[in-house]
Amino acid sequence: MSTLIDTLRQTVGAAHVLTEGDLTAWEQDWRRRARGKALAVVRPGSTQEVAAVVRACAAAGTAIVPQGGNTGLAVGSIPDETGTQVLLSLTRLNAIRAVDADNLTLTVEAGAILQNVQDAAEKAGLLFPLSLAAEGSCTIGGNLATNAGGTQVVRYGNTRDLCLGLEVVTPQGEIWDGLKGLRKDNTGYDLRDLFIGSEGTLGIITAATMKLYPQPAASLTAWAAVPSMEHAVQLLALAHKHLGAGLTGFEVMGRFALSLVAKHMPQLRVPFIDQADVPYGVLLENSDSESEAHARTRFESLLETAFEAGCVTDAVVAENLAQAHQLWHIRENIPLAQAEEGLNIKHDISVQIPRIPAFVEYADALLQREIPGVRLVNFGHLGDGNLHYNVQAPAEGDAKAFLRDEEARVNHLVYEAVAQFGGSFSAEHGVGALKVDKLEKYQSPVALSMMRAIKGALDPQGLMNPHCMLPVHSA
Amino acid sequence: MSTLIDTLRQTVGAAHVLTEGDLTAWEQDWRRRARGKALAVVRPGSTQEVAAVVRACAAAGTAIVPQGGNTGLAVGSIPDETGTQVLLSLTRLNAIRAVDADNLTLTVEAGAILQNVQDAAEKAGLLFPLSLAAEGSCTIGGNLATNAGGTQVVRYGNTRDLCLGLEVVTPQGEIWDGLKGLRKDNTGYDLRDLFIGSEGTLGIITAATMKLYPQPAASLTAWAAVPSMEHAVQLLALAHKHLGAGLTGFEVMGRFALSLVAKHMPQLRVPFIDQADVPYGVLLENSDSESEAHARTRFESLLETAFEAGCVTDAVVAENLAQAHQLWHIRENIPLAQAEEGLNIKHDISVQIPRIPAFVEYADALLQREIPGVRLVNFGHLGDGNLHYNVQAPAEGDAKAFLRDEEARVNHLVYEAVAQFGGSFSAEHGVGALKVDKLEKYQSPVALSMMRAIKGALDPQGLMNPHCMLPVHSA
Repeated sequence: MSTLIDTLRQTVGAAHVLTEGDLTAWEQDWRRRARGKALAVVRPGSTQEVAAVVRACAAAGTAIVPQGGNTGLAVGSIPDETGTQVLLSLTRLNAIRAVDADNLTLTVEAGAILQNVQDAAEKAGLLFPLSLAAEGSCTIGGNLATNAGGTQVVRYGNTRDLCLGLEVVTPQGEIWDGLKGLRKDNTGYDLRDLFIGSEGTLGIITAATMKLYPQPAASLTAWAAVPSMEHAVQLLALAHKHLGAGLTGFEVMGRFALSLVAKHMPQLRVPFIDQADVPYGVLLENSDSESEAHARTRFESLLETAFEAGCVTDAVVAENLAQAHQLWHIRENIPLAQAEEGLNIKHDISVQIPRIPAFVEYADALLQREIPGVRLVNFGHLGDGNLHYNVQAPAEGDAKAFLRDEEARVNHLVYEAVAQFGGSFSAEHGVGALKVDKLEKYQSPVALSMMRAIKGALDPQGLMNPHCMLPVHSA
Repeated sequence: MSTLIDTLRQTVGAAHVLTEGDLTAWEQDWRRRARGKALAVVRPGSTQEVAAVVRACAAAGTAIVPQGGNTGLAVGSIPDETGTQVLLSLTRLNAIRAVDADNLTLTVEAGAILQNVQDAAEKAGLLFPLSLAAEGSCTIGGNLATNAGGTQVVRYGNTRDLCLGLEVVTPQGEIWDGLKGLRKDNTGYDLRDLFIGSEGTLGIITAATMKLYPQPAASLTAWAAVPSMEHAVQLLALAHKHLGAGLTGFEVMGRFALSLVAKHMPQLRVPFIDQADVPYGVLLENSDSESEAHARTRFESLLETAFEAGCVTDAVVAENLAQAHQLWHIRENIPLAQAEEGLNIKHDISVQIPRIPAFVEYADALLQREIPGVRLVNFGHLGDGNLHYNVQAPAEGDAKAFLRDEEARVNHLVYEAVAQFGGSFSAEHGVGALKVDKLEKYQSPVALSMMRAIKGALDPQGLMNPHCMLPVHSA
């Protein structure tokens, strides 16, 4: 092994091959669910160096775990516990290579932090619409590797939909340059989308050309009190009809989730929290290419129609940007409020939007029956059919013991319910090492067999993130 | 072989296995560029029957060529000349299985004609935005297999972007049901996008769940006279900025292309054709979620800005639907007018939008220098950077001889110019059998090697459309 380490040191410089000291930042996952041990943390500074590192590892038969901001929620970017895997950190590849305002594209290296990508677009007077909680730390490479979602998917799609092309280092250490920046190109298989969402198991994304959009002339935010999840779904349909592509955000938040924010962050002033008969809040965002006045007229006309239809019982429209931020802040702080309340079990499920009310009714009743006192923190991207249907330990009792004793059963109950409603056990977080058994259980056997064939074809040595998604079992 | 034919007859019924009589409709391609010979034309009536046909062929080692409406422009859906391939026609699988207005989706079998899919959406008060010249004959399965483009890509994307999931029969005759209809699902590799655009070389798409959109409240069409391609590109940027997602069509048409329409279809009344100093016309479509009055105000404000900026020298906005159809009709009839004028060489290229003016200037000069008297029929989807940069034989002289003697050289000149400008030799038509050598020449070797590995992994017998895209050479 010392030969490999020596080669890596020659390749990227000794300062960028870490084998000693505190490697927690690279070896522990974001949610502290797991801790691995790396043979070395290697930090190449260019695509060519990434390729050389991969070739050296391939020659040595050493596995590679690619890592961006290490903010993933499925334990997909840390090494396993064997101490035999190279942790390849992409954070030094962080250049914004080009912003092309005329082509409405931006070419960026994998290690660039999402917020920096957003800022680069904004500086050019344009919008890069990917937005999610970890945007100050996560990297665009990680967003691509996991096909990240976020809060604007209802209008702009997942990360996949924002990408025009990739640069990838293959498991053989070759560089595929797919950065033409074309909006149409039908010349062979769609390798781009195969790599997007492959979680580092097929190769290493080193750069990408992403779509940009014109900045809207105005964005407005509203908070609506809705009498049931069924009404929230009706409100969504109305919003699609009234706002068309102007609907850029649609988040639902259950009363208990909001009560945790009110309890742990009283300064945030959650709308309608004092009205005990409001089971759900909905956060809507309307982006307008015309003007704020026009946005306001359209938004108010939507809410009026929704009032008349009984979908909305009360609503506030933010008067200015500060108020809008305040409302979004409440939504964004639900996970933190949950953490303040104590340990909990997170899910990231999706179901067809019209089936969400029935799913929630069924799953709520099931869990409450099976696990008395359980508390359901239900919120998420209703506009995409994606709920973070989380489960908080009962108020009284030992949360640690609850997690230890009940997590597997809670997951089983939730995922079986999701499967029964034709949904997905992972809408946006991915599989990682955390949900390998769920993929095996809930993905179609025909699909799994094709996925394994593809993995074997592109990574015949089985060295790319081999313990994640589709684990490679050593012979 | 008679055993295979017998098995196929038992599987789908003798009436649906054609081996005699006039098989031109299945054996000749749309543009009459080539004629193949099928071992048999097999017309299964269900997904199960497709799977059984594939299993029978796999057992016999017989190749399969899937076919929808057979309207492709790259000779990708007819058998080769050997008489050894089964032509599998999907046209009997034409059910619209479900229209789910609440989920904004529609599930449809591969053989459904695109126009019928559009109509089913419209009947539910919704929009299926894929629209292209062959929509009365092409099938949604063919649209998916080739990732078809069309005239609304600038807003809604290619066929790929409209698809949420597929049902596929694998080369082993297994059925993959990927029709969950979810907007988010990150559970393994993106098989959906791998099959989309794979031109029948990895398996057979039998059904799909497609996205629907709210019908716009109003759509307006305008025809603008622009003084140069550079100005057309500037107009596009202004249109993006002013109309946002309201911009649903942006087509450019060169003066010579329009003059052919004026000459061969004088009843169509091409705007500004009498003004000799108008080199390009641009067709714009603005769809509005609010009202016709609002659409008109926005549209007029855009055109006013464009006049002031000098991008537009004259313009007409259609006063009603009939006028709008008339304007679109001119655009749609360019290919027919070209055919009336005589034989020609078609291209389907893309270049980054800002580089289009320089590309056109360069390629025009090159062709005119190399092939004196050549006439350039330049039109296409400028909003996507996709031009049908076609070449008409010189006015005087033998067009047949021109095609025979010059086609290879014209293609070479055009594709080399495209490559020089970082573009693609096939933006939307695909590779088929026609452009196999172009794929080999212009696609990156690293990408080709990954594509071949995937082909080998999913279709190890090499039986799926084996003479197309990535030809399988028999050992």
